[in-house]
Amino acid sequence: MEKINVAVVGWGNVGKQAVKAVNAAPDMELVGVVRRSVSGDSARAGHVRAVEDIKELGKVDVALLCTPTRAVEEEASKYLAMGISTVDSFDIHSGIVDLRGKLGPIAKANGVVSVVAAGWDPGSDSVVRTLMEAMSPGGITYTDFGPGMSMGHSVVARSVAGVADALSLTIPLGTGVHRRLVYVQLKEGASFEKVEADIKTDPYFRHDETRVMQVDDVQALVDMGHGVSMSRKGVSGQTHNQMLQFNMRINNPALTSQVMASCARACKRLPPGCYTMIEIPVVDLLPGEREGHIHRLV
Amino acid sequence: MEKINVAVVGWGNVGKQAVKAVNAAPDMELVGVVRRSVSGDSARAGHVRAVEDIKELGKVDVALLCTPTRAVEEEASKYLAMGISTVDSFDIHSGIVDLRGKLGPIAKANGVVSVVAAGWDPGSDSVVRTLMEAMSPGGITYTDFGPGMSMGHSVVARSVAGVADALSLTIPLGTGVHRRLVYVQLKEGASFEKVEADIKTDPYFRHDETRVMQVDDVQALVDMGHGVSMSRKGVSGQTHNQMLQFNMRINNPALTSQVMASCARACKRLPPGCYTMIEIPVVDLLPGEREGHIHRLV
Repeated sequence: MEKINVAVVGWGNVGKQAVKAVNAAPDMELVGVVRRSVSGDSARAGHVRAVEDIKELGKVDVALLCTPTRAVEEEASKYLAMGISTVDSFDIHSGIVDLRGKLGPIAKANGVVSVVAAGWDPGSDSVVRTLMEAMSPGGITYTDFGPGMSMGHSVVARSVAGVADALSLTIPLGTGVHRRLVYVQLKEGASFEKVEADIKTDPYFRHDETRVMQVDDVQALVDMGHGVSMSRKGVSGQTHNQMLQFNMRINNPALTSQVMASCARACKRLPPGCYTMIEIPVVDLLPGEREGHIHRLV
Repeated sequence: MEKINVAVVGWGNVGKQAVKAVNAAPDMELVGVVRRSVSGDSARAGHVRAVEDIKELGKVDVALLCTPTRAVEEEASKYLAMGISTVDSFDIHSGIVDLRGKLGPIAKANGVVSVVAAGWDPGSDSVVRTLMEAMSPGGITYTDFGPGMSMGHSVVARSVAGVADALSLTIPLGTGVHRRLVYVQLKEGASFEKVEADIKTDPYFRHDETRVMQVDDVQALVDMGHGVSMSRKGVSGQTHNQMLQFNMRINNPALTSQVMASCARACKRLPPGCYTMIEIPVVDLLPGEREGHIHRLV
């Protein structure tokens, strides 16, 4: 079996876990990590070779883009144009159709595949939400997140001027309503009132009840556990009160990076283009041949 | 929008619900029901036209095979050879790879699609099981069914010589272990001991703890509610103790037939061939265009 050559781009929480997911995959070869700047000791990322330019890694089939969401479009466009398939966990739900529309033509023109929004929400949750609607077309699905740290929201809070470090917790209030608790550590001289206002008006936060609190040490509060509860009470045919539910309690970057790694397989199996996870047969996320999985899992 | 012309084959519990699912679908036209024998009053199935030969229904795109599992291969082969796509809910897990291997070439030769094992287990549960494994490749998934009536097992119990009517209940004992409670109403002169032995040695029952009980009136015990709890405790990358769970409480024939109807859409979207549900992008189960679903569900 020819292995899939995978590069991990980025060395944050998700990138570090992605290295572990790729190393654990029987059908993948980790060719290296791409970091923004590499010199001396940073020429390695953990036990893995690190480079600034992916070309130094030789033949790369798939790049897992473990970069901030707002860098995804530029990074993905660059690698797709080089003939390298990409997987990202872009997580601004309202921007996914647009991103897919932009990356699709680049992927097709270069004969490769881009999988976008491949984490757990958006990502594996999206697959379950879609399946639930196929099972009971009438009704409402509620997605309740947490309690847990939102990596995307924490990155955004950290990028606000005057913020030295930040942690955003998602608290489920039921029926899809959430509270965001944002713990911030300020830079010297920064105004808490200005930081608080900037966070509360950011598109990531402004739709939810958001409370911002100043603390001395954000890192002491960090726990990567997270969870979700999705429920649908719906109608199958003309039969009401069909109750469907999906729950999980997980380590967030470990699951995000695992889903990304699993999606790297789909890059080798789908026709060139850009896909969200609901457009990919789930069997294409697993290593090896279809028939064995059908025998075991169907 | 051109509607999908759907015929329902069979007029049992699933067939009756399938008519409702097709009627509720915005993109489908119910062209009629195919029954084994039609005369006088039975020329209608409820409010729907009933025929013995599908050719009487004009152009049919997809036939939903709401027949006993053991009739699926013959029925599907017949309709596929006529250029009609088929969806079945074949539920003998160990026979699915073989069925797919037999129907695939017939479907391809006639330019149509066969979706096999499209109920909830096998079916939608299979999609969740596969997704869970992609999310946490290491670990064990347990599928606990019930409490509820198993349609497939009841049909098998009913087909045993000497049985006038039968109901098989599935009781979850946890970690994938089940008890089968089979309530039988005997034909005059039948031996309970013989019936009990025949049921317990049938391939459908012999792997589970099975108790057979004789009652006067099986129909008084019937309740179509059913449920499942699937749980996986697994490893994402190198992170253990990832907890994933899917639960549902549903009307069984209503969900089975709804999943079948949703799979009829995939028949119009996939290249000719035979597919299980884990081989179908979940978005292809929903009516309408992909982009709207991506915007709403991803």
